[in-house]
Amino acid sequence: MTMDAQENSVGSPLDTREARREARLAIEEFNAEYCAVLDDGALEDWPDFFTEDGFYNITARENFDRGMPVGLVYCESRAMMRDRALAVSKTSMFGPRFLRHFITNTRVTGIEADGTICAQSNYILLEVLMDVPDGRLHQAGRLFDRFEPQSDGGLLLKSRIAVYDTLLVANALVLPV
Amino acid sequence: MTMDAQENSVGSPLDTREARREARLAIEEFNAEYCAVLDDGALEDWPDFFTEDGFYNITARENFDRGMPVGLVYCESRAMMRDRALAVSKTSMFGPRFLRHFITNTRVTGIEADGTICAQSNYILLEVLMDVPDGRLHQAGRLFDRFEPQSDGGLLLKSRIAVYDTLLVANALVLPV
Amino acid sequence: MTMDAQENSVGSPLDTREARREARLAIEEFNAEYCAVLDDGALEDWPDFFTEDGFYNITARENFDRGMPVGLVYCESRAMMRDRALAVSKTSMFGPRFLRHFITNTRVTGIEADGTICAQSNYILLEVLMDVPDGRLHQAGRLFDRFEPQSDGGLLLKSRIAVYDTLLVANALVLPV
Repeated sequence: MTMDAQENSVGSPLDTREARREARLAIEEFNAEYCAVLDDGALEDWPDFFTEDGFYNITARENFDRGMPVGLVYCESRAMMRDRALAVSKTSMFGPRFLRHFITNTRVTGIEADGTICAQSNYILLEVLMDVPDGRLHQAGRLFDRFEPQSDGGLLLKSRIAVYDTLLVANALVLPV
Repeated sequence: MTMDAQENSVGSPLDTREARREARLAIEEFNAEYCAVLDDGALEDWPDFFTEDGFYNITARENFDRGMPVGLVYCESRAMMRDRALAVSKTSMFGPRFLRHFITNTRVTGIEADGTICAQSNYILLEVLMDVPDGRLHQAGRLFDRFEPQSDGGLLLKSRIAVYDTLLVANALVLPV
Repeated sequence: MTMDAQENSVGSPLDTREARREARLAIEEFNAEYCAVLDDGALEDWPDFFTEDGFYNITARENFDRGMPVGLVYCESRAMMRDRALAVSKTSMFGPRFLRHFITNTRVTGIEADGTICAQSNYILLEVLMDVPDGRLHQAGRLFDRFEPQSDGGLLLKSRIAVYDTLLVANALVLPV
């Protein structure tokens, strides 16, 4: 998985202004569902937003910009995501917290010949902990996504790379964005 | 008013993918107007976003999740909202501040047989005070809404419950979200 | 340039509910591109979002509300914006930082007889610096925009006024919003 995969496709007959509009609105609806699951702490449902061979990565902007893909979370399949979700749910080394995701600025950067939609969005993740009762910024950054349209009209993620701007993450970053 | 009222309707013929898309876009436009009124401090116009018997509540996530509806603000009609707005406008126990609302992640969770639209959104409320000149997070959370479509094509709120994640609110929480 | 220019047009036959919906969606797409350019630090591309005689201003809410247009950044043409962008790029008096823009609550407030679209949006600008590694709020406020539809279906800004709520800006405010 390289950043090249985020390049716009050129010349795909599917890549029209109307198709980008439709795709953008569908992605916004997808992300609202996706964030609600994470906000509710329903981690066991999180892998269902991906294709079976879906890719998920959280990485720092300074690494991403240098083409270094190593990240804090790295899953190469839905099975790995399930393991990840289970591990997070079963461990109690992290204090209870409330999370709230905000996704804005969604833009479709290309639609490939096979229908894959390339898109980017900005995100904010706020967290509230017992010892941070008034809430704080946990992470902010950009999502680099590749979506596979499904026959039922919905979308699944083939790939999501969350690139966070923050140089320091306030505490152990184990939760998916 | 219980959380059951937020459940998706099942089987309503009105509840199609196209109708949810249309409703979502209409709600986003509604919320942009709603927030502009609150950001401008035009509290006297705030009750006009509700039906005459509209319900409004601000409550903590920890209470909401336990089914405890008691909240910081609790209005069971537009008349009560007008009282509330007047009270806030007339009292001067709160220092002047600038407010800025951000609503994202709007998703329609159901459309009932009578046309009522059930929806949720995430919100951020930032505030700037004289002694907090660089601004801070005042509140963040989720809106649980029920909208009544109007004959002119617009919407009115039958119910809005603002559920804030923050365990501590920085100062007396009297302003509607 | 006065605030009167932000007033809704009244009676323009172009100003229908459908046209406002279409304009809102187009503006959201415009702003996603606009923010991506600023987030990427590609300041040299920033003036291209404006008409040749485009106007750009960043000003404080307390000044804007009093009709005082003097702002931190004031450009009366695309040429001035190019100078501005060049000056910022060439100077090294500001430490390296990551920026992330979030635009929400976009609403069309009028469409004039010549097609000009008047709109407002709320914005958040987060920044991450070496000595602020967990990120912070740099600015938040409202955009007052006037867009000129282009023959290719896109938009250009005739005027953008960024009105920030914060009374104090954390450090020298030189970057466009």
